[in-house]
Amino acid sequence: MKTQYKDDSLALHTDLYQINMAESYWEDGIHNRKAIFEVYFRKLPFGNGYGIFAGLERIIEYLENFAFTESDIDYLRNQLGYQDDFLHYLQQIRFTGNVYSVQEGEMVFGNEPIIRVEAPLVEAQLIETALLNIVNYQTLIATKAARIKQVVGNDVVMEFGTRRAHELDAAIWGTRAAYIGGFNATSNVRAGKMFGIPVSGTHAHSFVQAYKDEYIAFHKYAGRHKDCVFLVDTYNTLKSGVPNAIKVAKELGDQIQFKGIRLDSGDLAYLSKEARKMLDQAGFHDTKIIASNDLDEATIINLKSQGAKIDIWGIGTKLITAFDQPALGAVYKLASIEDENGEMVDTIKISGNPEKVSTPGLKKVYRIINKLNGKSEGDYITLYNEEPEKEEKLKMFHPIHTFVSKFVTNFEAKNLHHQIFNSGKLVYDTPSLESMQKYTAANLDLLWDEYKRALHPEEYPVDLSQACWENKMNNINEVNSKVAEMVSTRTEY
Amino acid sequence: MKTQYKDDSLALHTDLYQINMAESYWEDGIHNRKAIFEVYFRKLPFGNGYGIFAGLERIIEYLENFAFTESDIDYLRNQLGYQDDFLHYLQQIRFTGNVYSVQEGEMVFGNEPIIRVEAPLVEAQLIETALLNIVNYQTLIATKAARIKQVVGNDVVMEFGTRRAHELDAAIWGTRAAYIGGFNATSNVRAGKMFGIPVSGTHAHSFVQAYKDEYIAFHKYAGRHKDCVFLVDTYNTLKSGVPNAIKVAKELGDQIQFKGIRLDSGDLAYLSKEARKMLDQAGFHDTKIIASNDLDEATIINLKSQGAKIDIWGIGTKLITAFDQPALGAVYKLASIEDENGEMVDTIKISGNPEKVSTPGLKKVYRIINKLNGKSEGDYITLYNEEPEKEEKLKMFHPIHTFVSKFVTNFEAKNLHHQIFNSGKLVYDTPSLESMQKYTAANLDLLWDEYKRALHPEEYPVDLSQACWENKMNNINEVNSKVAEMVSTRTEY
Repeated sequence: MKTQYKDDSLALHTDLYQINMAESYWEDGIHNRKAIFEVYFRKLPFGNGYGIFAGLERIIEYLENFAFTESDIDYLRNQLGYQDDFLHYLQQIRFTGNVYSVQEGEMVFGNEPIIRVEAPLVEAQLIETALLNIVNYQTLIATKAARIKQVVGNDVVMEFGTRRAHELDAAIWGTRAAYIGGFNATSNVRAGKMFGIPVSGTHAHSFVQAYKDEYIAFHKYAGRHKDCVFLVDTYNTLKSGVPNAIKVAKELGDQIQFKGIRLDSGDLAYLSKEARKMLDQAGFHDTKIIASNDLDEATIINLKSQGAKIDIWGIGTKLITAFDQPALGAVYKLASIEDENGEMVDTIKISGNPEKVSTPGLKKVYRIINKLNGKSEGDYITLYNEEPEKEEKLKMFHPIHTFVSKFVTNFEAKNLHHQIFNSGKLVYDTPSLESMQKYTAANLDLLWDEYKRALHPEEYPVDLSQACWENKMNNINEVNSKVAEMVSTRTEY
Repeated sequence: MKTQYKDDSLALHTDLYQINMAESYWEDGIHNRKAIFEVYFRKLPFGNGYGIFAGLERIIEYLENFAFTESDIDYLRNQLGYQDDFLHYLQQIRFTGNVYSVQEGEMVFGNEPIIRVEAPLVEAQLIETALLNIVNYQTLIATKAARIKQVVGNDVVMEFGTRRAHELDAAIWGTRAAYIGGFNATSNVRAGKMFGIPVSGTHAHSFVQAYKDEYIAFHKYAGRHKDCVFLVDTYNTLKSGVPNAIKVAKELGDQIQFKGIRLDSGDLAYLSKEARKMLDQAGFHDTKIIASNDLDEATIINLKSQGAKIDIWGIGTKLITAFDQPALGAVYKLASIEDENGEMVDTIKISGNPEKVSTPGLKKVYRIINKLNGKSEGDYITLYNEEPEKEEKLKMFHPIHTFVSKFVTNFEAKNLHHQIFNSGKLVYDTPSLESMQKYTAANLDLLWDEYKRALHPEEYPVDLSQACWENKMNNINEVNSKVAEMVSTRTEY
């Protein structure tokens, strides 16, 4: 970031139209009407069967510090021409609303509210862009990480992607999201410092090149680093790298721990099997084999199916850029707004595509867990006054193909939302990052395997309660007839 | 970023192995040997025929401020277990090297050095990760932007992607890179403030929803915003949105400038043609049509081929995430290093893949421009002591398929590198962002159309001088025989 503004704030990290709308609302005197917006995405990324939510910690910090600084206001006045009456108002805005959110590490699915913002219209609007910017990226990476973690099973996975990340923030917050999704470590030292994530790394090819002799280079490295991992593919993995690593380890004996070798090119299945044999023959049964080189979940599944002897996986580009689908499409939609009489009125966004029609009203999201087997039956979205936790029997049905339905009994209905802000005050204790990672893993145990398959998983049910569904249908009919009326009564334009 | 460290620095924004290598170099006493590293990528992204370099401004700021802070050192000591002798050394490191770079907006191609770092080995190594993190993303986006700008021709293109960007930095630096590549404006207000990029935006669907009546909403918007652009697709573009926009514009007459309408869904070719007719019939010939909705260069080419009447293009996700190829693979390779006698010795990284073998030695990059037609004949990489600008006739040949060759006369040989740092001191005046954008456009005029086609362009020549090529071949042979020797003399491991 340029340092020319000592008071640079994130309040301007928004789309210009938010400020234009804020101005109109303020001029019209409706800026303080209570509005309810929801963050949700429609479609899971990577064809995955579930998403993992991340981003809340960053959002909390953003909302707590939300304020336009002097240089922000100067810019809006001098460069963009906003008028002083509005700018005076803008300068004193802080976030004073309520925020409800699922916790980081929560499994999330399409079309369910992940975050709910209840705030004066103008505040809710101004924070939209930054919230989506944060949630979209961090949730994308946590989901990708969980996908990868699933195919490696109990192997260790490390995040190595800083150099390919989309600028500095993505490297830092991406690796935090990967940790939530199940990654064990990162190569990024700053992320280690900021978040307490374990950091990991050995040496690069340039180290071997600097000494021009691999054997000497390994010796030099081991001189200072007693837990030794040698990168063995600078010249020739099996003929030079692995033999040199073994030779140095034997020579140094107890002076070092020969922790591992790292393969970064070539055929990882073949090389890892051959290297394993060589290590075992030399008596280094506990020395691990670490592999990297454009890996992702599909390549890992293939390498494993060929019997690759890889213990630790280093994942860079494909994770940190979410290479096969680098954007999550979370949106921020108005669900309800206060009218001139102080009543909350539901709102809906209609679309020609049924999947894109929003669900109106103030809502809650429950996870319905079958007490008999501990597995989740699906998620269940209700209107705010419903209490499924008190019911004996629930009818769950597909919100579009409504004939797909089931009755559930003997269940626990778990409300997924936590209150984060109350009238602008933070009321949430952020759990440790480690407990978020554990929560993700425990969460995934709720799912049947059919929802967790990397390729073509079954669709997990996200259903609306009867009341919620009827409210949506009523809203659709209302808007449709209103649009029809607008069109039919128009005589000219 | 978490604020718990008031002295958070970017010195730790590096891979752990860089610090491990630094420690070994320092312990071995070779940390101050002069090393020459080069930044380059092998393959152009998106199948494009050229790249546009961006990222230098951010790199300059990073290098000028490079220093480990107290909390950085504490972390390395207390959490990672580095010893005090090395940490004392680390704490006083600043960047003291020379940096040469092409300017932002320069056309760049595969396998040519974009940045050259000449610095004490330890410094050159510690800065690698951050340099690549910055160059890879910003160059990727500048290139994508230039690609899109080319297919829109003289139409206006605006960057709308903040909500899908990979966290906050990507939104900010991505839109700056897009501006260098030819974009005219951004929706991100903070980027406007930081970089002086024009910002643009109107209102969202939620604005129309908040008023529940589109006609009233447009009136309210126009009340404060005299340069009016109305978003017309909240309910029904042709039956409600466009007619309401026209009605409001007619009613308000001279009180507003009816600048445009914005289409954000539906079939943009059909809707834009119909909307254009309606606007023209109502006498609003100067009112522009702005389109957005997951656009990229391929969709734009298709819409234009169907005669879409779109004047201004808003590009979000596909640009800011470089959706079809979200990573550029720039690397940082050791080209030469000082030996124990103070002599510089070239280094090479061998690979089974001929395209991946690095080019050793201290080098320069020239663009060879034909004076007769003003077009570029190709780029020409020489060793440092060569002066192609003084030659009458150049032989240019393909560095792998060497029989592909030509002789060039009557040319200008333009050295693409500028000195940025001299012994750690900044010696470069960063041009204005606007002049970078102009430079990009002028640059692209140097290329024949065959290199600029969006699909399947011809390969632009990036050739080595005879001396540079021979030096590379000698290095390859030397390493090959050394590896063969290592392998043949090994009797056991």
